[in-house]
Amino acid sequence: MAERIWTAALVVIGDEILSGRTQDKNIAQLAVWLNLQGIRLSEVRVVPDVMDAIGAAVNALAPAHDYLFTTGGIGPTHDDITVDAIAAALGLPVVAHPQAKAILDAYYADKGGVTEARLRMARTPEGASLIVNERSGAPGIRIGNIFILAGVPHIASAMLDSLTGKLEGGRRLVSATIGCWVQESEIADLLEATEKAHDGCQIGSYPFFRDGRTGANFVIRSADQARLDVCAADLTEALAARGYAPVAGGI
Amino acid sequence: MAERIWTAALVVIGDEILSGRTQDKNIAQLAVWLNLQGIRLSEVRVVPDVMDAIGAAVNALAPAHDYLFTTGGIGPTHDDITVDAIAAALGLPVVAHPQAKAILDAYYADKGGVTEARLRMARTPEGASLIVNERSGAPGIRIGNIFILAGVPHIASAMLDSLTGKLEGGRRLVSATIGCWVQESEIADLLEATEKAHDGCQIGSYPFFRDGRTGANFVIRSADQARLDVCAADLTEALAARGYAPVAGGI
Repeated sequence: MAERIWTAALVVIGDEILSGRTQDKNIAQLAVWLNLQGIRLSEVRVVPDVMDAIGAAVNALAPAHDYLFTTGGIGPTHDDITVDAIAAALGLPVVAHPQAKAILDAYYADKGGVTEARLRMARTPEGASLIVNERSGAPGIRIGNIFILAGVPHIASAMLDSLTGKLEGGRRLVSATIGCWVQESEIADLLEATEKAHDGCQIGSYPFFRDGRTGANFVIRSADQARLDVCAADLTEALAARGYAPVAGGI
Repeated sequence: MAERIWTAALVVIGDEILSGRTQDKNIAQLAVWLNLQGIRLSEVRVVPDVMDAIGAAVNALAPAHDYLFTTGGIGPTHDDITVDAIAAALGLPVVAHPQAKAILDAYYADKGGVTEARLRMARTPEGASLIVNERSGAPGIRIGNIFILAGVPHIASAMLDSLTGKLEGGRRLVSATIGCWVQESEIADLLEATEKAHDGCQIGSYPFFRDGRTGANFVIRSADQARLDVCAADLTEALAARGYAPVAGGI
């Protein structure tokens, strides 16, 4: 029986990403965290701060994956519409979440108290639970298999911290990187033959240009450490046999 | 009559982005470039190096936008399957493009010549034209409204250079940023009221935490410079009236 692979998708919500103003950091951050949970990030969509665009992405991805994450749009200002958009997409009303309000009351007690704007951050789709945020008070939100996180990367990170180890997953993907000062086109045949000879291993080739020289890192990925090790050893040996000097760990 | 808005979508192709190994830089780079062409980046999808995943994204996005860009997967190695995936999605055969072969012949003349692997980079969907790449030889590919670019950011950038000014677009979005050392929740009402009072302007609020202090940048976007200027002046005045010290250009 094939091993079950747990997958996740991510919807990055934000005009600031699509305008190029802000360099997204949540895709890479979530990808690394998910892999540690034994879950594979399989698709990402970046959508603008528009109700229908958010809703369409959520309705396409939530049923297709074990987990769906979103980042962005859960603050106190008028452009923070993620909760409304996801509730609408799921056909749920938006409610004031008593526990979220209590968290905000405590957090803002010595910061001017909870205002109408801050209360926006206590609104959730009906039936949601909260994702603790030790960093800045306002919690993330879980509704079904959807995890609604902040857009600011270090707050999203705090929310992921509180989810660590709590989601069911499978085996982690492990990887090994071998670098080489070579034009990838010179050893393309070797990479393909090595991948074909090692079931359950994928090899990616990532060229780079540094100090006026051309090189590439070859990343082998597998859910099986033993297979990975054998594949990496074979690739290293094959590169050396052609006269190159493979660098374990990459360049 | 409403002004026509030209839109584009981007498909980022690559396991290395979804694994978190590589921090994507093409989304922000393309977004900024598109805006200079008068085109808005409206949606991004990140998909793995899997034929069907690439094809599904291309078939969903190409008909929905004026332009579709892809990055990644056009090199000489076995994991470079973008051309095959897009050709399959469009129902087109893959052919050896004579002009692309001539470019590769010239580029590799003093680098060992064109090999079978390098010839992979001369393959295109039938009927495609080429996008010149002054940086590293192998061209990008245009087929219909689809622009197939390299994944390495500085090569993608070289391909964009050769497209600059050649795509039809509308008015550029202009933006103004006003920074303020304030918790955005304290002035959420003011932001919303200012946006409502200025048709054709959107205000985004982007909080940050620096040197132990909380601040936010407010980004006003519009297709109309005059409206933008008035909106920015009003927001600046409104913040000052509340006792804050707005910083033109952002913090």
